[in-house]
Amino acid sequence: MELKFLDSKPSSLSEKAALVARTKSSPFSSFEHPVGVKFSQEFSSCRGISKKASYLSSNGTYMPKRANSSVDKEKTAAENYFYQISGTNGASSSLFSRNVGVLDACDDEYGGVVVDPDRLPANPDDFAPMLQFSLSHWKMKGKKGIWLKLPLERSELVPVAVKEGFEYHHAEPGYVMLTYWIPEGPCLLPTNATHQVGVGGFVINDKNEVLVVQEKFYDPSFADLWKIPTGFILESEEIYTGAVREVKEETGVDTEFVEVIAFRHAHNLAFDKSDLFFVCMLKPLSAQLKVDDLEIQAAKWMPLVEFVAQPLIQEDGLFMKIVDICMARLGKHYCGLLPRQVVSKFDGRSSCLYHNVIDAGNVTCNGN
Amino acid sequence: MELKFLDSKPSSLSEKAALVARTKSSPFSSFEHPVGVKFSQEFSSCRGISKKASYLSSNGTYMPKRANSSVDKEKTAAENYFYQISGTNGASSSLFSRNVGVLDACDDEYGGVVVDPDRLPANPDDFAPMLQFSLSHWKMKGKKGIWLKLPLERSELVPVAVKEGFEYHHAEPGYVMLTYWIPEGPCLLPTNATHQVGVGGFVINDKNEVLVVQEKFYDPSFADLWKIPTGFILESEEIYTGAVREVKEETGVDTEFVEVIAFRHAHNLAFDKSDLFFVCMLKPLSAQLKVDDLEIQAAKWMPLVEFVAQPLIQEDGLFMKIVDICMARLGKHYCGLLPRQVVSKFDGRSSCLYHNVIDAGNVTCNGN
Repeated sequence: MELKFLDSKPSSLSEKAALVARTKSSPFSSFEHPVGVKFSQEFSSCRGISKKASYLSSNGTYMPKRANSSVDKEKTAAENYFYQISGTNGASSSLFSRNVGVLDACDDEYGGVVVDPDRLPANPDDFAPMLQFSLSHWKMKGKKGIWLKLPLERSELVPVAVKEGFEYHHAEPGYVMLTYWIPEGPCLLPTNATHQVGVGGFVINDKNEVLVVQEKFYDPSFADLWKIPTGFILESEEIYTGAVREVKEETGVDTEFVEVIAFRHAHNLAFDKSDLFFVCMLKPLSAQLKVDDLEIQAAKWMPLVEFVAQPLIQEDGLFMKIVDICMARLGKHYCGLLPRQVVSKFDGRSSCLYHNVIDAGNVTCNGN
Repeated sequence: MELKFLDSKPSSLSEKAALVARTKSSPFSSFEHPVGVKFSQEFSSCRGISKKASYLSSNGTYMPKRANSSVDKEKTAAENYFYQISGTNGASSSLFSRNVGVLDACDDEYGGVVVDPDRLPANPDDFAPMLQFSLSHWKMKGKKGIWLKLPLERSELVPVAVKEGFEYHHAEPGYVMLTYWIPEGPCLLPTNATHQVGVGGFVINDKNEVLVVQEKFYDPSFADLWKIPTGFILESEEIYTGAVREVKEETGVDTEFVEVIAFRHAHNLAFDKSDLFFVCMLKPLSAQLKVDDLEIQAAKWMPLVEFVAQPLIQEDGLFMKIVDICMARLGKHYCGLLPRQVVSKFDGRSSCLYHNVIDAGNVTCNGN
């Protein structure tokens, strides 16, 4: 019998903190909209499973051996058992043995486990037996959701995880997140992002001309339509900043944000996701046009009456309602929403609350 | 030399239509917020590459041979060439040869290609050479973005695609979408969904009591906080429906939606995504409480003055602003947003436009 220690450099605080930061829910979520199972918000809940030793069984079966150092009384006995089994399926990089232990991971505060993506086994052949053993271990400990983030450069581990029953949760260019729900009954893990967010800028000058564009990529049936500049907001961008940026990018015109005047909620669009589209009233600060060659075919200042008179707008319920609201706003018969920076003590951060003007006098609100 | 035909059953219209439907952007997007590159909106733009024949070269190099049937003049000559090369790296399921052809795919109207996930090669060993050949082919044709959707059950193809330079774009439980941007310069493909959307229900009865909850999973520092019921909206759910549902699920109380009174925009929360949280005013239709055991510790009707007097609310800028707005709304000094179903001729579908009341008289709007 051979006793061997796995490579187990203690993971640094910064590594763990970064792991938790990448996966945690809003520090404000206890107020906001938590779901059944949330991520750990505190590093303190992340109890690393490290300092593993491995143990070679002569018959190739799991042979637990209690580690003889750093026994943490909070851990179960199993957590201090480390294994090495014979490689019997020929996939091991070693001719004779394969290291098996619980994957480096930390607990979340909802009974789940977050595998450390920076400490996955270097040898892909070690991954399948370690994942199998980890799942048995986590099941035994009554764990619920398992979060497994695989960086792009470890894509060879994806089919291994899927074979063990993991499903995709979400992905970004540099990684894919897989999950495994242990308990019987429906999976209570929070879902992936559900929405795209877009903005449109309604810009009107003091000659009653609207800033409009024609796009390069359009459905042929909309070929003649002059429309307001629109686009998706960027990652972490504010709605009011995004509207000003899009107008500048597409037309070259500088503007100042006035109000969000309405928003549209639509479903089953790109990638089957939903879409929130915020119509913003903007005030022009410059007049000269400089068209974005990439997206935009043409831009111009169009008399408001001509803009509204376009058949494609006249025939469309949604277009017309938005135009009505913009007209009402121009005539001071309508109030939109303004963003206010508010700091919450729960996360110490500033975020934007969009709301209407709070009037001193009585107002008639939607019949209620 | 051996001439052999690849398995190439013509893909059905419904398969292709489903593929396009799953990936297309909003049929309304020409009005909405298109980005530089969008998906095909019409099945007609999907020109399937099928009816392939393969050709075996005796020296293992690509040896194009023009197919002798169904020559489409719109296609380049290369699109009608089909290949089979010798399997030289030992990975082939066949000892001697491997079929190579362009992957089944359709064009999108933005110069991109959408690979058909239902017609990936059955033999995983065929995938690498087919993908390599397809990329060469698409590069030669001046294509831009390549969309490769790999179902969960074909996860063995993920590392192959990554090795060829694909990146993850997004994932849902049943699949991962990978992309490859061919041109030099920045990738112009639309991004993944960027936002989670949550709702909170402010429910107040005619005794001036607010419906409040305490959650099971909370940060210890918020242990004493009674808060309004909150939660994420479901896939394709409306904001007003989600608010009523969340209140019912967490407290058992039936309510009627009144207005969206404000929304908060915050960034870098769960999975680094942004978050839009809509505060809804709701009118109670029942009083009896039935607490959701899974998420909620306790629920009660709390006098408004007690609710507002909670230290955690008094000390928090965001909480207090929301409470102020709710108070103003109760005192008829504030108007929120109401959803109106509007049908657009551009997609023939109904969606919700949330806007304020359009008043006949003059109003003072945010100083503009």
